[in-house]
Amino acid sequence: MTLADIGEFGFIDRIRQGCLIRPQSVIRAIGDDAAAYEPAVGELVLVTTDLLVERVHFLKAATSGFNLGHKALAVNLSDIAAMGGTARQAFVGIAVPESCSLAYLEDFYRGMQSLAGEYGVNILGGDTTASKSDLAISITVTGSVPAAQMLCRDGARPGDHICVSGFLGDSRAGLHLILNHITPETPAFRNLFQAHVLPRPCLAEGRFLACSGAVSAAIDVSDGLSADLWQIARSSRVGACLHADRIPLSKDLHRFCNHFGYDALEYALAGGEDYTLLFTVEPTHFQAVEQGFSEQFGNPLHVIGQITDSGKLEIESAGGRRTPLTPSGWNHFKPG
Amino acid sequence: MTLADIGEFGFIDRIRQGCLIRPQSVIRAIGDDAAAYEPAVGELVLVTTDLLVERVHFLKAATSGFNLGHKALAVNLSDIAAMGGTARQAFVGIAVPESCSLAYLEDFYRGMQSLAGEYGVNILGGDTTASKSDLAISITVTGSVPAAQMLCRDGARPGDHICVSGFLGDSRAGLHLILNHITPETPAFRNLFQAHVLPRPCLAEGRFLACSGAVSAAIDVSDGLSADLWQIARSSRVGACLHADRIPLSKDLHRFCNHFGYDALEYALAGGEDYTLLFTVEPTHFQAVEQGFSEQFGNPLHVIGQITDSGKLEIESAGGRRTPLTPSGWNHFKPG
Repeated sequence: MTLADIGEFGFIDRIRQGCLIRPQSVIRAIGDDAAAYEPAVGELVLVTTDLLVERVHFLKAATSGFNLGHKALAVNLSDIAAMGGTARQAFVGIAVPESCSLAYLEDFYRGMQSLAGEYGVNILGGDTTASKSDLAISITVTGSVPAAQMLCRDGARPGDHICVSGFLGDSRAGLHLILNHITPETPAFRNLFQAHVLPRPCLAEGRFLACSGAVSAAIDVSDGLSADLWQIARSSRVGACLHADRIPLSKDLHRFCNHFGYDALEYALAGGEDYTLLFTVEPTHFQAVEQGFSEQFGNPLHVIGQITDSGKLEIESAGGRRTPLTPSGWNHFKPG
Repeated sequence: MTLADIGEFGFIDRIRQGCLIRPQSVIRAIGDDAAAYEPAVGELVLVTTDLLVERVHFLKAATSGFNLGHKALAVNLSDIAAMGGTARQAFVGIAVPESCSLAYLEDFYRGMQSLAGEYGVNILGGDTTASKSDLAISITVTGSVPAAQMLCRDGARPGDHICVSGFLGDSRAGLHLILNHITPETPAFRNLFQAHVLPRPCLAEGRFLACSGAVSAAIDVSDGLSADLWQIARSSRVGACLHADRIPLSKDLHRFCNHFGYDALEYALAGGEDYTLLFTVEPTHFQAVEQGFSEQFGNPLHVIGQITDSGKLEIESAGGRRTPLTPSGWNHFKPG
């Protein structure tokens, strides 16, 4: 069965259930010219939007509808997390080729709704349309944050600690398995696969860091550690130096790299799609933040380097040798 | 020159200028994980989103970048107008095939920025990505409206006057010219062409109607008069009867229909993309609304029918004969 069999309105009626997770403050959901809701009193409105296109961001044959829905929403929630905000409402546009089954689309909505439910986010509206070729998905998420708590990219200062909230590189390893049609049969490979297809947005961690008052800059690792660190450095007009041996690498990634002969550090630096938070903390407040974080989340904060005044990215080896680091993440239109 | 020559960030740097129209209340524009702004105090947040896909919604060869940018934003502003709201911020995602020139994209942004400037709307963020086939555009607009003034689809009651704010059918006639490669050489044809490619969102009209307190339901005419009237009837659980001879048809549309032998009324009923407002007014307040409207906008309100309790759509001829009316507008996945 395809969309053509039930029509646009029939489809909306089918997926409408399960979209309203937190009805408080919602005045109009799906079904009018626009959605309407009460903003959080005294807070800023946050808005982020992403456009995901088949054969650029995902291979339809290689991902279930559920996983695609989960990930499409997760990457937007991660942007709200990086601002220190609370995610509130999601708006979903899909352009659907004739070949796409209704079962796949419903599975896509189930994946979104499952994640939305977990994080108290409503799916309040969207647009459903045809496509002559690829499946395209546009997701916009609104959130809110008290102005004084908002985390931005441009506040890092020389001397600040550079931290991440979790492992890096696992997602890239998972992508490698997918692109090479390797069935993840060991627990290690299954974890890497999972890290790529079902990333967790760090919303609670973002709120904790926002409330700490000690975080000078933050971003989520989507394009890759080096590329996203460069965004902070560029916006803050500072430099940064990473310590190669302090970058948190999972046992699973080590196993993967040993198996295939890859460099785990390279995966962590240039991988992308980790959706951990990368942020900078004033040294005087660091201990309190570190302690509170590990108490609340049961995981340590990883200090992976320092902000410098060099205006450049550098990386220091265990032996103390500093070399320049290239921001080598993902750029959709990288000049030749 | 294409996006590949300057990269994603180079492109963002180029189009960033001209995006911030009304900087008051904006805390973060393009360049962080999410945009941030202060909501209008005491008002609801409105959000609407549309996904436009090449070969489904537009033919790239038949539209300039400027016109495409104008229209893509206009249709979203029109949704805010239909809620009685003030449009505030726009977020623009584009998925760009390799074949698309940088000049076309910059022209697209100029078209959006020109309209955004006219209506005091900021372009606060978005996403730029590659596409393997068609150009796809996702626009999300946020607005605001005092809760007590919001216009919805579901408040129409039997006896209410059905009104429109302007001519119907012109846009469909303009589309006919485009699809048949007819150069609009007469002033009449140029107006029809204009109605299709550069529609005006009725934001001021929407605010006027919202403030009047006398409008029971509203929608913008995007799918076609009969289809959009059916949305009001369905949501409000009422019926509606149109008076065929009161539907406002432009002289240009009459000229067009005389020339090609088409039925102007049919164009008005099923045409779509008019972006006039269709709304219902309580009879006791009608005179005040009508007078205020024509004083403020220099155009009359057109009463085109009445809300009934029949649960059906009907149309009455000049001679008083009532026949059923089919909601025959645009449905992307119309069942065979």
